Amino acid sequence: MKKLINTADSVVSDALNGMAAAHPSLRIRDQVVYRAEGPRPGKVGLVSGGGSGHEPLHAGFVGYGMLDAACPGEIFTSPVPDQIIDATKAVDGGAGVLHIVKNYTGDVLNFEMAAELTEDVEVVSVLVDDDVAVQDSLYTAGRRGTGATLFVEKIAGALAEEGAPLAAVAAVASEVDERSRSFGIALTSCTTPHAGKPTFDLPETEVELGIGIHGEPGRARVPLVPARELAGIAMEAIHGDLPLRGDLLVMVNGMGGTPLMELYVAFAEVAAYVEGKGARVSRSLVGNYVTSLDMQGFSVTICLLDDTLTRLWDAPVETPGLRWGR
Amino acid sequence: MKKLINTADSVVSDALNGMAAAHPSLRIRDQVVYRAEGPRPGKVGLVSGGGSGHEPLHAGFVGYGMLDAACPGEIFTSPVPDQIIDATKAVDGGAGVLHIVKNYTGDVLNFEMAAELTEDVEVVSVLVDDDVAVQDSLYTAGRRGTGATLFVEKIAGALAEEGAPLAAVAAVASEVDERSRSFGIALTSCTTPHAGKPTFDLPETEVELGIGIHGEPGRARVPLVPARELAGIAMEAIHGDLPLRGDLLVMVNGMGGTPLMELYVAFAEVAAYVEGKGARVSRSLVGNYVTSLDMQGFSVTICLLDDTLTRLWDAPVETPGLRWGR
Repeated sequence: MKKLINTADSVVSDALNGMAAAHPSLRIRDQVVYRAEGPRPGKVGLVSGGGSGHEPLHAGFVGYGMLDAACPGEIFTSPVPDQIIDATKAVDGGAGVLHIVKNYTGDVLNFEMAAELTEDVEVVSVLVDDDVAVQDSLYTAGRRGTGATLFVEKIAGALAEEGAPLAAVAAVASEVDERSRSFGIALTSCTTPHAGKPTFDLPETEVELGIGIHGEPGRARVPLVPARELAGIAMEAIHGDLPLRGDLLVMVNGMGGTPLMELYVAFAEVAAYVEGKGARVSRSLVGNYVTSLDMQGFSVTICLLDDTLTRLWDAPVETPGLRWGR
Repeated sequence: MKKLINTADSVVSDALNGMAAAHPSLRIRDQVVYRAEGPRPGKVGLVSGGGSGHEPLHAGFVGYGMLDAACPGEIFTSPVPDQIIDATKAVDGGAGVLHIVKNYTGDVLNFEMAAELTEDVEVVSVLVDDDVAVQDSLYTAGRRGTGATLFVEKIAGALAEEGAPLAAVAAVASEVDERSRSFGIALTSCTTPHAGKPTFDLPETEVELGIGIHGEPGRARVPLVPARELAGIAMEAIHGDLPLRGDLLVMVNGMGGTPLMELYVAFAEVAAYVEGKGARVSRSLVGNYVTSLDMQGFSVTICLLDDTLTRLWDAPVETPGLRWGR
């Protein structure tokens, strides 16, 4: 195992120091990443977080039009309530705070505890549980939260930026989760710095269907087949759960170790599948957004758009991991 | 070897189909990637290209504020003159065309031939040769062109967008190359789809210093050491060739398979080194920009900025691989 790190113990704080050095738009304090300019009076604050190792999620999505703060835990480990309490207090501009929580048992518990312990701030939580692969899993009661987290953060962040009240921001976040589905496929395992060896063994000729973003087991292992068939498997799982129709937001996401060229190969197949169902790729993202350290593989996340969600997706965003202005 | 592809023979065209499906801002014809809107009368056209496998370079940098066209060859293989001739003719808006050529023997020859054979278009070529690792290499007479290619494309692209004449756009491109230096370190080899096995063998305990972006040998192999020391080796090589001073544009670039978290760890060390020399990180990029398929490792590219170069770096850019508006 070769890692570009100093020590396994310091990797999260070393990486945060690098983020602070690279992005003057961020301020980092007590392992919480904030917008440097602080809260805007009257704007709903957005806080998310989770284990590290999924970068750019979440810290890379702090900035105008997305999150106000992110709480990174240690690698694949939930943030502690103190981080979340600090973040929640610090980003409140008087309009309350939305917690965006991926559905993992540890995250859910710690965000719940933090919400209860944060006095004088109105907090609403939204759970993201978009992964259709398995009903329960190693770290989860119910479906896992994966790629749709980015969609929720972007779209709720845009509505918050417009000055909408907490209830409306929470409602659109829930709506995005309900309209989104994901499915991931691993070609290789990932290796955490502390373990120093792959989280699981995957034979040289097989792939894992329905992989989680921490290497949790999926539905099945099958022999490696061409990208067209892998994309088809992912899309059948999604379409079988939420039939594709109308305008879609489509993300083909790399798990961290897959070349961009291969993600575009997969995207071409996903787009062909969508067209075959009579739906339309209206907006898209291709790249490494919700990763699992050095894992090779990809996931597909689909959201059924409407005019409002499309407008909020298109709204300007300025974060290290996602930025555009229109 | 597991790849997310259909076949080794179709991987480049399949990936280009994916780019076309994902990015309505691009038009792809005969293995050339263009801006969909075509040439703007009076604007200098920018054409670059090279072997595939370095994505997002170059096709991901076609768009407002950067390239007008990119000519992707097969994997790690130069584009053919016909592609370059097509691109050059198609992007000419009457003000001439700049060829941005990475210094590899095949690229240089084919761009030269294309420039000679393109009638009725004024063409100027700029060579990028920023890699301080080795003087000559497997595919190169003189230094290799690597990370600075992105800087040249961005800054020359911004000046062209302002309507500057060809000579001025070529001059700023050369100036960026002269002010830029790179050094790369590999933790692993890369695997091309056709070969199906790693391009070179690197023991589990060693790294290759001064690696090229096709896996060409570098200066030496040494035992893996912490990120701080690896960054120090890269920075010593750069600083020894072009002393750091004043405001710097600093890129810590992933070779394709390295997690973003680890790139930030490296960036923190690079930034500390820069500060130690009394220079300043004025602008920065951290991510996968000039890659070598699935190689794990990183490169550092530094450009000595001045006010003009900073202004052009900050100018709006809208491409799949790099986008911001200010």
